[in-house]
Amino acid sequence: MYRALRVFARSGHLARAPASASAPGLSGAAVLPVWLPNAARMASQNSFRTEYDTFGELKVPNDKYYGAQTVRSTMNFKIGGVTERMPIPVIKAFGILKRAAAEVNQDYGLDPKIANAIMKAADETGSGTQTNMNVNEVISNRAIEMLGGELGSKKPVHPNDHVNKSQSSNDTFPTAMHIAAAIEVHEVLLPGLQKLHDALEAKSKEFAQIIKIGRTHTQDAVPLTLGQEFSGYVQQVKYAMARIKAAMPRIYELAAGGTAVGTGLNTRIGFAEKVAAKVAALTGLPFVTAPNKFEALAAHDALVELSGAMNTTACSLMKIANDVRFLGSGPRSGLGELILPENEPGSSIMPGKVNPTQCEAMTMVAAQVMGNHVAVTVGGSNGHFELNVFKPMMIKNVLHSARLLGDASVSFTENCVLGIQANTERINKLMNESLMLVTALNPHIGYDKAAKIAKTAHKNGSTLKETAIELGYLTAEQFDEWVKPKDMLGPK
Amino acid sequence: MYRALRVFARSGHLARAPASASAPGLSGAAVLPVWLPNAARMASQNSFRTEYDTFGELKVPNDKYYGAQTVRSTMNFKIGGVTERMPIPVIKAFGILKRAAAEVNQDYGLDPKIANAIMKAADETGSGTQTNMNVNEVISNRAIEMLGGELGSKKPVHPNDHVNKSQSSNDTFPTAMHIAAAIEVHEVLLPGLQKLHDALEAKSKEFAQIIKIGRTHTQDAVPLTLGQEFSGYVQQVKYAMARIKAAMPRIYELAAGGTAVGTGLNTRIGFAEKVAAKVAALTGLPFVTAPNKFEALAAHDALVELSGAMNTTACSLMKIANDVRFLGSGPRSGLGELILPENEPGSSIMPGKVNPTQCEAMTMVAAQVMGNHVAVTVGGSNGHFELNVFKPMMIKNVLHSARLLGDASVSFTENCVLGIQANTERINKLMNESLMLVTALNPHIGYDKAAKIAKTAHKNGSTLKETAIELGYLTAEQFDEWVKPKDMLGPK
Amino acid sequence: MYRALRVFARSGHLARAPASASAPGLSGAAVLPVWLPNAARMASQNSFRTEYDTFGELKVPNDKYYGAQTVRSTMNFKIGGVTERMPIPVIKAFGILKRAAAEVNQDYGLDPKIANAIMKAADETGSGTQTNMNVNEVISNRAIEMLGGELGSKKPVHPNDHVNKSQSSNDTFPTAMHIAAAIEVHEVLLPGLQKLHDALEAKSKEFAQIIKIGRTHTQDAVPLTLGQEFSGYVQQVKYAMARIKAAMPRIYELAAGGTAVGTGLNTRIGFAEKVAAKVAALTGLPFVTAPNKFEALAAHDALVELSGAMNTTACSLMKIANDVRFLGSGPRSGLGELILPENEPGSSIMPGKVNPTQCEAMTMVAAQVMGNHVAVTVGGSNGHFELNVFKPMMIKNVLHSARLLGDASVSFTENCVLGIQANTERINKLMNESLMLVTALNPHIGYDKAAKIAKTAHKNGSTLKETAIELGYLTAEQFDEWVKPKDMLGPK
Amino acid sequence: MYRALRVFARSGHLARAPASASAPGLSGAAVLPVWLPNAARMASQNSFRTEYDTFGELKVPNDKYYGAQTVRSTMNFKIGGVTERMPIPVIKAFGILKRAAAEVNQDYGLDPKIANAIMKAADETGSGTQTNMNVNEVISNRAIEMLGGELGSKKPVHPNDHVNKSQSSNDTFPTAMHIAAAIEVHEVLLPGLQKLHDALEAKSKEFAQIIKIGRTHTQDAVPLTLGQEFSGYVQQVKYAMARIKAAMPRIYELAAGGTAVGTGLNTRIGFAEKVAAKVAALTGLPFVTAPNKFEALAAHDALVELSGAMNTTACSLMKIANDVRFLGSGPRSGLGELILPENEPGSSIMPGKVNPTQCEAMTMVAAQVMGNHVAVTVGGSNGHFELNVFKPMMIKNVLHSARLLGDASVSFTENCVLGIQANTERINKLMNESLMLVTALNPHIGYDKAAKIAKTAHKNGSTLKETAIELGYLTAEQFDEWVKPKDMLGPK
Repeated sequence: MYRALRVFARSGHLARAPASASAPGLSGAAVLPVWLPNAARMASQNSFRTEYDTFGELKVPNDKYYGAQTVRSTMNFKIGGVTERMPIPVIKAFGILKRAAAEVNQDYGLDPKIANAIMKAADETGSGTQTNMNVNEVISNRAIEMLGGELGSKKPVHPNDHVNKSQSSNDTFPTAMHIAAAIEVHEVLLPGLQKLHDALEAKSKEFAQIIKIGRTHTQDAVPLTLGQEFSGYVQQVKYAMARIKAAMPRIYELAAGGTAVGTGLNTRIGFAEKVAAKVAALTGLPFVTAPNKFEALAAHDALVELSGAMNTTACSLMKIANDVRFLGSGPRSGLGELILPENEPGSSIMPGKVNPTQCEAMTMVAAQVMGNHVAVTVGGSNGHFELNVFKPMMIKNVLHSARLLGDASVSFTENCVLGIQANTERINKLMNESLMLVTALNPHIGYDKAAKIAKTAHKNGSTLKETAIELGYLTAEQFDEWVKPKDMLGPK
Repeated sequence: MYRALRVFARSGHLARAPASASAPGLSGAAVLPVWLPNAARMASQNSFRTEYDTFGELKVPNDKYYGAQTVRSTMNFKIGGVTERMPIPVIKAFGILKRAAAEVNQDYGLDPKIANAIMKAADETGSGTQTNMNVNEVISNRAIEMLGGELGSKKPVHPNDHVNKSQSSNDTFPTAMHIAAAIEVHEVLLPGLQKLHDALEAKSKEFAQIIKIGRTHTQDAVPLTLGQEFSGYVQQVKYAMARIKAAMPRIYELAAGGTAVGTGLNTRIGFAEKVAAKVAALTGLPFVTAPNKFEALAAHDALVELSGAMNTTACSLMKIANDVRFLGSGPRSGLGELILPENEPGSSIMPGKVNPTQCEAMTMVAAQVMGNHVAVTVGGSNGHFELNVFKPMMIKNVLHSARLLGDASVSFTENCVLGIQANTERINKLMNESLMLVTALNPHIGYDKAAKIAKTAHKNGSTLKETAIELGYLTAEQFDEWVKPKDMLGPK
Repeated sequence: MYRALRVFARSGHLARAPASASAPGLSGAAVLPVWLPNAARMASQNSFRTEYDTFGELKVPNDKYYGAQTVRSTMNFKIGGVTERMPIPVIKAFGILKRAAAEVNQDYGLDPKIANAIMKAADETGSGTQTNMNVNEVISNRAIEMLGGELGSKKPVHPNDHVNKSQSSNDTFPTAMHIAAAIEVHEVLLPGLQKLHDALEAKSKEFAQIIKIGRTHTQDAVPLTLGQEFSGYVQQVKYAMARIKAAMPRIYELAAGGTAVGTGLNTRIGFAEKVAAKVAALTGLPFVTAPNKFEALAAHDALVELSGAMNTTACSLMKIANDVRFLGSGPRSGLGELILPENEPGSSIMPGKVNPTQCEAMTMVAAQVMGNHVAVTVGGSNGHFELNVFKPMMIKNVLHSARLLGDASVSFTENCVLGIQANTERINKLMNESLMLVTALNPHIGYDKAAKIAKTAHKNGSTLKETAIELGYLTAEQFDEWVKPKDMLGPK
Repeated sequence: MYRALRVFARSGHLARAPASASAPGLSGAAVLPVWLPNAARMASQNSFRTEYDTFGELKVPNDKYYGAQTVRSTMNFKIGGVTERMPIPVIKAFGILKRAAAEVNQDYGLDPKIANAIMKAADETGSGTQTNMNVNEVISNRAIEMLGGELGSKKPVHPNDHVNKSQSSNDTFPTAMHIAAAIEVHEVLLPGLQKLHDALEAKSKEFAQIIKIGRTHTQDAVPLTLGQEFSGYVQQVKYAMARIKAAMPRIYELAAGGTAVGTGLNTRIGFAEKVAAKVAALTGLPFVTAPNKFEALAAHDALVELSGAMNTTACSLMKIANDVRFLGSGPRSGLGELILPENEPGSSIMPGKVNPTQCEAMTMVAAQVMGNHVAVTVGGSNGHFELNVFKPMMIKNVLHSARLLGDASVSFTENCVLGIQANTERINKLMNESLMLVTALNPHIGYDKAAKIAKTAHKNGSTLKETAIELGYLTAEQFDEWVKPKDMLGPK
């Protein structure tokens, strides 16, 4: 599984200098801002070669694989600084796609020497550079180098005619988006949620016998076990995974083969299916070719859908993290039912303070995911005609949400959930004082009398039992028989 | 199917006057504002009876079935006016639930005379009144009336002890939410989308032979058929239905039987399952009891999920409606490829103007649904402990979105899609002048030369053919053989 | 001030039957769905007259003032039911505008008899009907009736040539939007917030001497007074009003006079300024003519801005309501520092339970406003060329938010804030036990030693004082001198 | 102005190695993830020193200034990778604040030697590290080094007792947030918008005489000048700046002096005012101390407000960018009224294609800002008691939006707006063929006859003039006199 990716993890940056030079590292690489659909580039220093695109001549730094088109957009997009680069998973996905396309193109007649060089260059990619037109340049130059040619000469491996054969930015970018999203979901998001689910489930079992007061409307209610309370969280995370998985079938559909507008112009019959099969083989994920390429280029509803599943997950995790921090509030003036792990000093002014920082990180992540979802939604609704051009912004936010939710789930699990302890002394005290145990009397004396007992006890600060007897509604024996917290934990 | 509902559709308002009085209509009914969790009420005029709740004595208008609790909240919630009433589908859902619960309670020993009166009163409900505590009052009073008792006496049918038996606001309200959402989805949303899908599919077939210019980045691109373009819309709507259906399994899970905090206190073993089965029988929808009642009360992730599916649908429909209005723009200064039905005068000052008002309605609906989704998300993330208290706001928005999307789909279909005509003259003209037909030359002369042709033709305002020959890249015969729009519609 | 409005409040529905008939009430009026830009209408029963629009002949019910265009859209827009009608404040605003325009048109030569009839008919409006083209019909027919003419004859008062003189839907609707928003802000939103502000301020003063434990990160922190805590809420509401007022200058700018595309075609020089002045006089609000009519028609940034101010207000109110419900949580297992008014029974199953329903209503309203804001934002970003067509959806949401926030502020004030009591016994207990009082020792023994004391006391369940002495960091006398809660409430 | 900032721009990373070591660069610096409220750190390699915090002993890399607390959180927060670091502007703001506080503390008695060392160390900061507790460590160690002490010894400059004197994370972080936001607004956002405004205004003047067809509802409408159309954009950007400036007064309010909960415990009277004055002097911006520190810590409504102003700006810019791309659509099958600069090849498959990539970048930025705004809103609504803990997430999104909008405005201006040309030939053609010129006839022959002309001409594909004459409504001379596009550009 993920053979290609493991290769990529080993390899250097695609945009690095040719063999003789030293790798300049990510910051020197041409990772383009997310704010242009399919391209962008960065200029460099020192010696240069001359390249051409359809706009004319351009100087390209000699120690870079990228070419004219990459350089040209250097001047055009200066928006937002380094944090706005195309996400690495998209670049990795492009490497996978370009390799798959070269293999299929070879089947359809592409010179095996060229196809092989492209495949090898694509394999080296993965932590590299940019989006389609620029990936084409980088791969063609690296392939040219492998075959002893001259960088920038476009011979014998042309970036458009060979590397981009049977492809267009319009179908490769959405293909890379789906590959990147699927991998991030499977490598980061789902494993993170599973880890959290398992930890919560273990806690639910550990706390199965601890009876505590319930709270509805943030007010005291009838009892449940702490294990039951946690079982609700377990269910939420379980469903979160189910929701995300339910969105994947449409993510597994690849646009590759649709080329410019969805018709598949300049591809061969069967190309789309074969590329999807190759990508499936390279990644171990069940990718298929999209049944309708027009939809696959012009709409990115599948990303909105996945983002929606993550938005629901964010709601679930915010609920859980909020509960944990409120149940763990204190140490002396809060609810104090849970003891949370103490991870770091909590205040620069209040000595000895410890804060539920993992809960805070999780709720911040949840808010961010909700915001990302709106960005994805706005982008997803604004496609026009044969293309939605909000692709880079959409995939950036989808990958951001997947990564944040996955990472935060792991951090929250390891640094908080696993170490949660029940403060049983406090839990017992609160539970036994509760007025809502009176609910157990409903079937015996009716709602109205039970209400009278509770309201009177509340007013007088007395116990339910003494109030009930005082009001003459029942005997002490009856009270003891009817009001047993551990009998209130389920139907009879 | 939907037997209960059909009954409800026939019956009057539950909060209507007793038998002798005339029905005051919806505006006189006690439909409560959505801004309180489980209750609210409206006072009335004329003669009164005295009722009691746990807070004391209250005057209740004699011509109303509702009782003390309903009256009490009259004074407390005056937020937003008549449009903020609890949505009718929620009231109908409560009728279904209360009937189901009475049947099951009879199995468990509730006096059949009382159970029957409750069932009949619940059957009459449906276009009536309020949420749980108030529904209990209305049903008990109507049942009392049927049994010859005195309104407000709570005898022989007590609102809490009998009508609400084995229930709590905390489990009945989420149960009613799920029932209402499921019915609205099945009766309004999915049929509306299906109708739109079918109309778009018919148009896609009708337009299968019309070759037109494609547009990517809102710029001219290679050709496709108008039928292919519409097939993308068909796919979007098809997937919209699939997404909504994928969210339903968790909507079909009912909280009933969880009572106050999810434990099922004061219910009987099997009650939850039986009630779900009864509701399924009454509605014809596959409702089941929720596997974890703690989650079902404390989180409404299922509604966030459904809202997310509708949010994705909104993106799809906005894309489609935007395309239709731009393709139909003109009549003389727009794209003009589609001729849209003319439904009404479009301007009070510009004579003869006709506007794409159905597209506008659809895009407004889409924006509203996106907003509703954020409201649902914020509500869904803010549950605490054993209860999420944003229930009424959440279900209001979910039902609002479902209704708007369903209705707008029907309106858009009937008043726009069905009447769309292709302006073939215009389509042909634009297609034949397009520079992007040059793409067909890529496999023959390479990307760079093809680009040269296109750029030169653009600069000179000349045709591709004359430019290509002038540049000496090919012969007239070659051009005619290689550049055939109808050969550009798919892979080879 | 608001002379016109008061008149409107008195008058019947504009769409009512002619003089001899009885008023059918709102439900019979032609209040159109919000989902079409400028028009929509409802058909009726019984006898009919024949009218014409540019599409041809139509039957119009004899007992209605509306005309052909209104009837025509009956068939076209069936989206969402009665709750989706154009908000009443928009209709009232149209009445104001039409009256103002008639007055100005008279100055420019409109026959005074016609102008007067229009003014009178417009004065009667106000709780009536629809948007521009339909308001024109209603007013012209009512004016015709006053002048003894035949309904539907367009003589002597033509809906377009006279009532709509110097106007277009494109400038009248945004004008009505701004008038409606400004009035709702001044009549509902700001008074509601002021009331809440004043109540919170009174509580802040009432609680000025009550020293309590602070909470940061939901954990115990150093003390403050309950009055100080409430002063934060006061400041939030004070700023909420400031924010809303800061958005008003651009709301006071009216599009009237821009007619169809912003040029003011078919108006007279000075018309725009005069209409704005008339509207200002009629409403008592400082309306002016928009300095750039192109912006005023094509963009509704001013509504997005106002919605943004309300969105910030929603954040403020959610914070306040959340604090109140958590501080009032209990009665025995929560924080219990505040005693909230008990307004109604809180549970149908748990006798004696009382819930913070006003806080819940407020937080639901806040979530709704946040959602509405996204709908407004999406609509506001999607204008094209000379017109933004999301007008009805945008104004509906803006008015919805204003009404909800204003009403909820009043409800929250009257039913909750005014009745809040401090539970001083509980407050004192929590404060005196707090470990965070140790912060007072920082300047005397340094952060590290103070931290040691707090952590040791926490571990041992002992008091700060005994721990501090035990650790040998200070004497009992020093502790008593240095650690005085009332000395910890401000700088020295 | 911005003296401190310019210094910072020169200086190295605060977290760099001590003097003798080589600077490890940003990637080696301890820039903490945004997902924890006040702290986080990164471990390192090689030789270590031992430090202590209240949790015990820790190994700190010898070549780092940061200390125990920074190291500790290394293990706790691994969420999201390098792009999730605390934004640099926040770090710069902390440098400004710490310097200001040291100056004021010296006035109140802090040893001048220590104060000076802190000031110098703070001046060096600025492109460095982390949030309050960690900034304290870094500054104390650098100050210790300057004074010849031992790193990690906390002597003679203690991170809490000296560097953090009269401060808390709870007031310094919001102070730094406001400083960072204000600087970003003034250095990036407003200059970017001003540049765009000026360029649009110049175009508006350049295009003042070009009469073109207007479009409402995306349909042909009456004419206006291209200059008038652009004047609407100018107004939108002008108001965008006004809106942002209107939000700044509350951003200029600083929390410093509130310390832990807003009371100002452990500060001196006047400290808050003096620190604000120092910050104002250092930045040249009108900062003042917040009038209510409780609000300033517990709520970040001011950031929600600023985000709201940017959200409105995003709507404005999306409208403008959408118009530009649609008006520039073509080259042969679009509206084609504008000729946009050609910046780079637009397609990897369609030769010669050029796309409106700057418009696309701008609309993507707009969508992102709308999403960021929801994240800020959700965070802003979730403060509890004396502290809102969503601070890092909120400021990250606010700074992100400010940077993106500012940068995108510059990019859009330089690479698009400045180079826009009017396609006058196309514009004239469309304008002269338009049916909506008929509107000029309204005052002469009435709306109904004018409509008849337009509809007939549309049906027959004929001109207005010939149709009008044919219908016998007017003479050719009258037509020529009444229908003059240049007379339709304003009121008369």
